Amino acid sequence: MSATARGRVLLSVTGFNPHRWYELLSKEREVVLEPEPLDDPSIEYAVLWKQKRGILSKLPNLKVIFSIGAGVDHILADDLLPDVPIVRVVADNLSEHMREYIAWRVLDHHRQGMLYRSQQRQKIWHDARQVLAKEVAVGIMGFGHLGRQAAEMLLPFGFRINGWSRRPQEMAGISCYSGEEGLTPFLNATDILVVLLPLTPQTDGIVNRSLLSKLRKDGPLGGPCLINAGRGRLQRDDEILKALDEGILKEASLDVFEQEPLARTSPLWNHPRVFITPHAAATSYAEHLAGPMLTQMDTFERGEPLRNVVDRATGY
Amino acid sequence: MSATARGRVLLSVTGFNPHRWYELLSKEREVVLEPEPLDDPSIEYAVLWKQKRGILSKLPNLKVIFSIGAGVDHILADDLLPDVPIVRVVADNLSEHMREYIAWRVLDHHRQGMLYRSQQRQKIWHDARQVLAKEVAVGIMGFGHLGRQAAEMLLPFGFRINGWSRRPQEMAGISCYSGEEGLTPFLNATDILVVLLPLTPQTDGIVNRSLLSKLRKDGPLGGPCLINAGRGRLQRDDEILKALDEGILKEASLDVFEQEPLARTSPLWNHPRVFITPHAAATSYAEHLAGPMLTQMDTFERGEPLRNVVDRATGY
Ligand SMILES: NC(=O)c1ccc[n+]([C@@H]2O[C@H](COP(=O)([O-])OP(=O)(O)OC[C@H]3O[C@@H](n4cnc5c(N)ncnc54)[C@H](OP(=O)(O)O)[C@@H]3O)[C@@H](O)[C@H]2O)c1
Ligand SMILES: NC(=O)c1ccc[n+]([C@@H]2O[C@H](COP(=O)([O-])OP(=O)(O)OC[C@H]3O[C@@H](n4cnc5c(N)ncnc54)[C@H](OP(=O)(O)O)[C@@H]3O)[C@@H](O)[C@H]2O)c1
Repeated sequence: MSATARGRVLLSVTGFNPHRWYELLSKEREVVLEPEPLDDPSIEYAVLWKQKRGILSKLPNLKVIFSIGAGVDHILADDLLPDVPIVRVVADNLSEHMREYIAWRVLDHHRQGMLYRSQQRQKIWHDARQVLAKEVAVGIMGFGHLGRQAAEMLLPFGFRINGWSRRPQEMAGISCYSGEEGLTPFLNATDILVVLLPLTPQTDGIVNRSLLSKLRKDGPLGGPCLINAGRGRLQRDDEILKALDEGILKEASLDVFEQEPLARTSPLWNHPRVFITPHAAATSYAEHLAGPMLTQMDTFERGEPLRNVVDRATGY
Repeated sequence: MSATARGRVLLSVTGFNPHRWYELLSKEREVVLEPEPLDDPSIEYAVLWKQKRGILSKLPNLKVIFSIGAGVDHILADDLLPDVPIVRVVADNLSEHMREYIAWRVLDHHRQGMLYRSQQRQKIWHDARQVLAKEVAVGIMGFGHLGRQAAEMLLPFGFRINGWSRRPQEMAGISCYSGEEGLTPFLNATDILVVLLPLTPQTDGIVNRSLLSKLRKDGPLGGPCLINAGRGRLQRDDEILKALDEGILKEASLDVFEQEPLARTSPLWNHPRVFITPHAAATSYAEHLAGPMLTQMDTFERGEPLRNVVDRATGY
């Protein structure tokens, strides 16, 4: 079959240059970049990161939307989104980067990285009391694909691990909590909170002062720590700052922010107990992800079911 | 048997307060702290960290020396040391702390912690290209008890791992090198060098400019990184600085130094690509180690063989 006879692909992203995606998708399909007339009947697929509002609404033959990323909140934010299946990213390399990021940040809080960096600046030679991993409870909020992979990396170190999900889940060696009634016990038993939730109407702003104040107060690290690698709008930036300054929170590692890029005026940048990365915990690279997307378009056309389709009702 | 009828213990340390060791060892045996007359025939054991030179030389009935630590270079440095067995520390909690420290530092170099901390200070929002763990080779120099435990934590992340030891060793999933002829190929294949050697006449000063210049130059991290959690005298502090400034070495995490505490005048403190901890990778706590030492004294007196005895010929 010639490339032109097959469904074409609309590529629409904001926030980064889609050149590499264009190049790789074009190897097998014709790719349309905006701005072009967007009522083209030959466009059957869309590959998106934060598309412009309404850009898909006039496509008569759109069949599948592919998200450039594990989360799809950036797609669902569009109230003019047509009702076709949305496929999200579930890919080995993304999971590998995320589990590295989570283990790296957990170890940094556990091993007092902030304290030692501050001591180094002051040329202070003093060893902090070492806490055993088994005394520290890591609570993974959003115990899905990425949360589980992070847990698998942390278990061998001996950390106690709690997971929190919407529906009851299970995993060997993990204390699993679920639903609203499970949230407070989960938080009460957690020293290092790892946020890997999707952003949905239910989770919007969930990481606020009230939630943080429920984390274990008398834990061995001298106060609870927060790691957010889910989405920025899960948190309230100003309430995290308040919690840090009120002593509710000891330290935070933040990969995501309410607004990205984080404004230069944000006090998070300079806060001595905040570590910042620019939404880089697990980046979606075209090199790894374009191939599997093209494969799914082919198998879909052969009548096979789509994999990793998002549930519109729950929003993830 | 009453405590006084059993062999007494000489406790001799420098560099920290032995109060807790005294307290815990005293629960089961009479403990002698210097200064006391040191030709006492009732002293059968010595528990040591950097003892004063010659302090053991006049004890007529000394039977076993216990090292407060996995390494024994601090004991063997004494040229008047009597010829009795030396037992070193091999303990779960020490290994756990060391494997945490190594994984923490490897992940920090792999995930560009120094770059992101520098960007944070400058409020720069820019994500560095992410390298896959399988593209990065971690070389563990000194592939003994602690080196193997570190490898076990790193393997699940997907890192390639090389080990280097004196005698040929094996471990599933690891490329093992040994002896002098194995050193250059080991270094040539290594991006992140982890030093966990004991300090012996053979290893003294081994981590010098010449050795560092053999590490893989075209690796994915943009230059090789060094982690030393063995002993300070394995390295030449000034040659590490030179290697950093000449571009031979990209970054270093140093837990140990030629002289400890590290002098306030050392340029290592302020170097932007050096991370310093105060010989705190895996601290020997009396709470965890005094009990097993006392047990070994008892089993030894019942005629059982000592465990973890050092080979004087090799020095570790
Ligand atoms: N920072 C980055 O670079 C980066 C990269 C990739 C992904 N992410 C973020 O990571 C998120 C998670 O990815 P994933 O692949 O692990 O997703 P996933 O497999 O869908 O897992 C989501 C988890 O969150 C739970 N959850 C959802 N809504 C909930 C609610 N209202 N209450 C309690 N639990 C709820 C789910 O519960 P159930 O198990 O009951 O379904 C599930 O355990 C993505 O949505 C994305 O936002 C960030
Ligand atoms: N920074 C800290 O807080 C801290 C804490 C604990 C320990 N340490 C240090 O860590 C060191 C390692 O401890 P460990 O328990 O892993 O010791 P270990 O079990 O004795 O292992 C030592 C390893 O080094 C290798 N080795 C020794 N001499 C060598 C040589 N000349 N050439 C090549 N390889 C050589 C050994 O080779 P073979 O396998 O052939 O014997 C072995 O693989 C200790 O000696 C101590 O200095 C530091």
